[in-house]
Amino acid sequence: MMPLGPVAILGGTGQQGSGLARRLAAAGIDIVVGSRDPDRARGTIAGWTERVEVASNASAAAAADTIVFAVPFKTIDALVDDVGSRMRADAIAIDVTVPLTFEGGRMAMLDVAEGSAAEHIRARLPQGIALACAFKTIPAHLLDRVDEPLDCDEFVCGDSDAARERALALVAALPQLRGVDVGPLARARSIEQLTALAVAINRRHKRHDARFRVVGL
Amino acid sequence: MMPLGPVAILGGTGQQGSGLARRLAAAGIDIVVGSRDPDRARGTIAGWTERVEVASNASAAAAADTIVFAVPFKTIDALVDDVGSRMRADAIAIDVTVPLTFEGGRMAMLDVAEGSAAEHIRARLPQGIALACAFKTIPAHLLDRVDEPLDCDEFVCGDSDAARERALALVAALPQLRGVDVGPLARARSIEQLTALAVAINRRHKRHDARFRVVGL
Repeated sequence: MMPLGPVAILGGTGQQGSGLARRLAAAGIDIVVGSRDPDRARGTIAGWTERVEVASNASAAAAADTIVFAVPFKTIDALVDDVGSRMRADAIAIDVTVPLTFEGGRMAMLDVAEGSAAEHIRARLPQGIALACAFKTIPAHLLDRVDEPLDCDEFVCGDSDAARERALALVAALPQLRGVDVGPLARARSIEQLTALAVAINRRHKRHDARFRVVGL
Repeated sequence: MMPLGPVAILGGTGQQGSGLARRLAAAGIDIVVGSRDPDRARGTIAGWTERVEVASNASAAAAADTIVFAVPFKTIDALVDDVGSRMRADAIAIDVTVPLTFEGGRMAMLDVAEGSAAEHIRARLPQGIALACAFKTIPAHLLDRVDEPLDCDEFVCGDSDAARERALALVAALPQLRGVDVGPLARARSIEQLTALAVAINRRHKRHDARFRVVGL
């Protein structure tokens, strides 16, 4: 496997982004945390490893081979507008967002015209940038507890072989996590519904960490 | 737990229905297999246990406390029209269908106006009949190999507590299968997408039995 070059994690100080950044850094990957507010972000990452740097989202996107979109779905359009033209022509984008809303305490899927958050982002990214999804079903706060192992499966999809391979390599970098390639980007519709199912299970059974493993694979 | 009264399995000679009928009968539950063609169905069940009888779909529905809809989704409207008025007022319906199509070898979710097969059936059943879903994500042909254990989770949802409890009791009757209550009937949208994900995993990885287990529960 090719060594993974610098990975930008846009929104890398949020719960999901911060968990990913620290776990990937612990696996020996150089990380650039992208933030709307790099000064504040520098405070957040103080105490993380030397492998993690901070930059604006646009600078982080320009500096990396792999760009992870780890912002809340409702801010994704502004982020893609901000960084799309800054990404290298051969960069690969990884979408980890889920279009869930918790308004009024009730969990619901947002109605995304393209069918999934992944397809929504695809429609807004520069054509040449390959896109895959990963890390959509792993609980963000489990990801953020970086000393706890991730004993589950992570589902990867994308229309580009190179992008799926990159996403699978990121998953494989995290101990005990197994990547499961599920094919084309439109499979994100199923993956995002799986996250909704995990949240529903957590709420109903007063848990926080429901996640999935495929049996028979 | 109350003993489970006779369970009607409409479409009980199909792969999914036949697996359910034989496994539930093996658990000591009396089964009435409903069929459009009871004479032919009698041939199919010859050699099954004495606990399994055959009737027309309408007669099977009239004879049971629990009625499982195990026909292909595309025939569900005709079936509900046929049996809806024959069901007992206190009967509970269990939907096990998934709105998948495999036309031209390509798997796709049918566009169901109500959001899921379960909600589609809900809109067509008599109001008083409570409905839950179960057995949507277990591979039909694994279900049909009745000597093999089912070492996975099955997701149950429904708006009626009584219906969810009945569905969970059916799941619990099958050794090693764990029922996971995921709440309201609209969660069927996620469950049915999970089946699509299992099919996608099977196709991509040349397997036949992909199924799921919840970690952290």
